[in-house]
Amino acid sequence: MFRIDLKVRDYECDIQGVVNNAVYQNYLEHARHEFLLTNNIDFAALTNAGIHLMLIRAELDFKDSLKPGNQFYITVELEKQSRIKYAFVQNIYRADDDKLMVQARAIGVALNEKGRPTAFEPLDLMSETD
Amino acid sequence: MFRIDLKVRDYECDIQGVVNNAVYQNYLEHARHEFLLTNNIDFAALTNAGIHLMLIRAELDFKDSLKPGNQFYITVELEKQSRIKYAFVQNIYRADDDKLMVQARAIGVALNEKGRPTAFEPLDLMSETD
Amino acid sequence: MFRIDLKVRDYECDIQGVVNNAVYQNYLEHARHEFLLTNNIDFAALTNAGIHLMLIRAELDFKDSLKPGNQFYITVELEKQSRIKYAFVQNIYRADDDKLMVQARAIGVALNEKGRPTAFEPLDLMSETD
Amino acid sequence: MFRIDLKVRDYECDIQGVVNNAVYQNYLEHARHEFLLTNNIDFAALTNAGIHLMLIRAELDFKDSLKPGNQFYITVELEKQSRIKYAFVQNIYRADDDKLMVQARAIGVALNEKGRPTAFEPLDLMSETD
Repeated sequence: MFRIDLKVRDYECDIQGVVNNAVYQNYLEHARHEFLLTNNIDFAALTNAGIHLMLIRAELDFKDSLKPGNQFYITVELEKQSRIKYAFVQNIYRADDDKLMVQARAIGVALNEKGRPTAFEPLDLMSETD
Repeated sequence: MFRIDLKVRDYECDIQGVVNNAVYQNYLEHARHEFLLTNNIDFAALTNAGIHLMLIRAELDFKDSLKPGNQFYITVELEKQSRIKYAFVQNIYRADDDKLMVQARAIGVALNEKGRPTAFEPLDLMSETD
Repeated sequence: MFRIDLKVRDYECDIQGVVNNAVYQNYLEHARHEFLLTNNIDFAALTNAGIHLMLIRAELDFKDSLKPGNQFYITVELEKQSRIKYAFVQNIYRADDDKLMVQARAIGVALNEKGRPTAFEPLDLMSETD
Repeated sequence: MFRIDLKVRDYECDIQGVVNNAVYQNYLEHARHEFLLTNNIDFAALTNAGIHLMLIRAELDFKDSLKPGNQFYITVELEKQSRIKYAFVQNIYRADDDKLMVQARAIGVALNEKGRPTAFEPLDLMSETD
């Protein structure tokens, strides 16, 4: 399974002394893009080519809070939902004790140059082979 | 119903030329805190007093994308879910045409000094009177 | 003089309980873009048209720290530095007591489609008339 | 010399398709904190103990722009400026070709529990031994 290892940066933490909720979406986006990259899908290059990978839904369950200095890792799996929808199933674990911190599900589509959802073969191939 | 009016800032937009998904969580958090403030709950003061309002779940449906310069507004409603859980029901609308851009639901709890979820009377009062 | 009024958002504050240093650059960028807009220069539209307004230098003196809930305002003035360089002179004041919080100077250039610094008439006109 | 290796994340890039100026301050802060940590100074722990390391000035020269996917590294050196002031001299280089992207200087002080600048022995020791 795809996994990326990261470390909390102090500026990502808020006045509660923990990683701010919105930052987990940053982490999750970064993990998705790195996951795509290992499958030869370059988000930035696609964007420049007029194909926009967009989220239509995100669900996040916050189980516990990452803190300054914490090492953590994110796993990513891709599931095909329909002809044009894909679900990224993602978990964030604290590295020290493999504790699940955030459980997430992000539903995405590919938009063509006209802004219409479109079947996107590279994602199909990934979801089949995974 | 509570409503806050904001404007997209260019730095909140990403290489797709639209507001980045994670930024909507920033917007939604800010709207929740302003909503609480109008009900005399000051998030920062609470945090300093050792009471932590935390999200345990967030659901976001991205309907359309805000762009640089867009004016928008966010509505907030509070629903009591259980003795200790509260749901913030939040919508983000583009101001120009009142188009729904993001539909969100954030489930929160109050943690006491020991980190335990606790009944929090001020939120009870808010959810009753709304 | 151009002035924009804003309010600190809790997510902009870090574990020290004050606005994070990097966020002032966000504020300052937003103030510059709003300042340009009142002079009919739309940063995002320019970017789409292939003209990139870029900073080449930023100087920030942090005098005091904005805190959660603080209202503040930013002033912006434009000074022509050379045929192709412009200085944005910007101050951030706490609204309550007009205390100077951050004093900043941002030097910018306009890059043409080839990425070369170029004389940019609209900025000339602004710096002359201000 | 201290060096930290990082990679641009897509969400750090703005509508110009490059890393947003404010994000370099995030990078630089993270590099400073990691640098301090290798010298046994834990920024978050210090903050909890009531000692606040604060910047009083930042200077950034933007030489070129990091783009999505770029690997980069940041170097950090500490210079003592006075009995209570320290300068972090920091450079950001693109890893591919060791090109200097940002040259920065951040002046910091340590504030004691009363918010007064104070001599801070651990930083003295670091600046001496470097």
